[in-house]
Amino acid sequence: MSTFTTAIGIDFGGTSVKSAVVREGKLIHRGVPIDPQAATSSDALLDSLVALIAGMRVDFPDIAGVGIGLPGFVDIERGVVHELTNVAGWNDVPLRDILQQRIGLPVTVENDANAMAYAEYKCGAARGARYVMCITLGTGVGGALVLDGHIFRGAQFAAGEIGHMSIDLHGVSGPYGNTGGLEEYVGNVQIAERAGERYRAAGQAKTPADCTPANLSAAALRGDPVAARMWDDLAIEIGAALANVIWIINPDTIVIGGGVAKAGPLLFDPIRREIRQRTLALYHEHLRVVPAELGNDAGIIGNAILALEAAELCRNAEKII
Amino acid sequence: MSTFTTAIGIDFGGTSVKSAVVREGKLIHRGVPIDPQAATSSDALLDSLVALIAGMRVDFPDIAGVGIGLPGFVDIERGVVHELTNVAGWNDVPLRDILQQRIGLPVTVENDANAMAYAEYKCGAARGARYVMCITLGTGVGGALVLDGHIFRGAQFAAGEIGHMSIDLHGVSGPYGNTGGLEEYVGNVQIAERAGERYRAAGQAKTPADCTPANLSAAALRGDPVAARMWDDLAIEIGAALANVIWIINPDTIVIGGGVAKAGPLLFDPIRREIRQRTLALYHEHLRVVPAELGNDAGIIGNAILALEAAELCRNAEKII
Repeated sequence: MSTFTTAIGIDFGGTSVKSAVVREGKLIHRGVPIDPQAATSSDALLDSLVALIAGMRVDFPDIAGVGIGLPGFVDIERGVVHELTNVAGWNDVPLRDILQQRIGLPVTVENDANAMAYAEYKCGAARGARYVMCITLGTGVGGALVLDGHIFRGAQFAAGEIGHMSIDLHGVSGPYGNTGGLEEYVGNVQIAERAGERYRAAGQAKTPADCTPANLSAAALRGDPVAARMWDDLAIEIGAALANVIWIINPDTIVIGGGVAKAGPLLFDPIRREIRQRTLALYHEHLRVVPAELGNDAGIIGNAILALEAAELCRNAEKII
Repeated sequence: MSTFTTAIGIDFGGTSVKSAVVREGKLIHRGVPIDPQAATSSDALLDSLVALIAGMRVDFPDIAGVGIGLPGFVDIERGVVHELTNVAGWNDVPLRDILQQRIGLPVTVENDANAMAYAEYKCGAARGARYVMCITLGTGVGGALVLDGHIFRGAQFAAGEIGHMSIDLHGVSGPYGNTGGLEEYVGNVQIAERAGERYRAAGQAKTPADCTPANLSAAALRGDPVAARMWDDLAIEIGAALANVIWIINPDTIVIGGGVAKAGPLLFDPIRREIRQRTLALYHEHLRVVPAELGNDAGIIGNAILALEAAELCRNAEKII
């Protein structure tokens, strides 16, 4: 039985650090967001995190730990964040140990997509599933695996990165040397660029702002053929990438989240069709392909759960000693 | 401590059923190969398997179990082989229970690529590794994952099938509906066809027999530019597929086996180059990409090890009762 019920979850994004006190999987108090780009140094940023946590502990003295999720590559074992987008001087910061020492509570650090996937597994769309692939479709395309009840991280804690998996070995070059990486086709910026080009080719002038996923959704629902075709092509690309994961992992559940996933059936129906077409029945006849349930709070919830698990481990270790 | 040391491993191929008595990871006695296509029915084939096993037990009375690996999709939990290439009437045969009942020993059934990978992990090229991807390059392109010391099978025991993973969403159609599946480029038959075309384009007549992997290896080593280019292209295709697995699984070891892998550095050097190019350093700087060590006996050894583990489980279950 778990002794602890309450932890702080922090979702450390490139433009906003969102946080909340989470009790039994529910947000019970939101922290004031911090703008990481406003911090003059990584020390100043750490000071504001410590102040935020201290403030929450006044009102919620039963807080048992703090979980922080960050974009990019995180060394879970040593608690070190290799690099943080948009924060000057943030290189190989041993975030876990620094914070633990300053606040006297167990701290976890985790890749943001992993934390989101774990939340969906623990109390969202993948409850009860055994082999879960999560994909988040936004500015970046993130991914994570939860296998047999645990986040699957791989040798350097870097597993699940479906955004950089290639769907076309002769395709568009991406930032990490690969060609045809999924993100180069279905990231928000790429969607806007491609849709813009297609509109221009059809003789319609559109700004990038006209081509957000939300606007393309609305346009497709109004019967706009360019937008409808765009969603179909995105679904083919996402479906091809997911089919690759299916052949390798044979998951029972695929969770799709992020802003682009709000297109709903416009995206999910053709993705499911692509998966059926590109895999044997054995792989897809019992497969669930479902939207994420926890929305923007998934990261906060997942990190809080990871912090509770770490607090439990610490308590048990003390007992054994 | 393991009590049992000796088991029978059977590698049930489409054209030959190879077997041996295996003691502590070594073959100590080979069985006479059975031709599955010569059997008039699945019952006749089962009879010859039972006779083979009975014969071996006369000479090796300490045999603790029998492990059988088969191509295609095997339901590990129920011990059922869904379908067997080249054997008429072999559909959904509950092979494990039938054999167990007839011989009175624990029997395991496993996908052949999984058994080979497990052997390489237990006593071959992937000893001591934690996150292993194995790929076998032959007529078919098989694959398997050994993660955290266990064969990773996924929801329908069908994980690891890198041969059907797409490297080009607009590529060649394969047998299971996917386009651009790796096997459609680097399977033995496909290699021979592609090399034949390239030779013809270069004004040289070659038969398919001239274009076996072994002959293409020898030709490339003699400086034949068509063959050299062929190996480089194969390596790009295999490297692109492996890079996809790397982004998703983040393995520490990749084992490459099968006839095509005998090309050695001709294939391994450019595969390693492709992987370096298509992944971040974090993923490849500690990654080992190595040839399989156990050759054609990997399946026999892996199945024997699985049988010993099953025998151990049975013994422990009896103790508990």
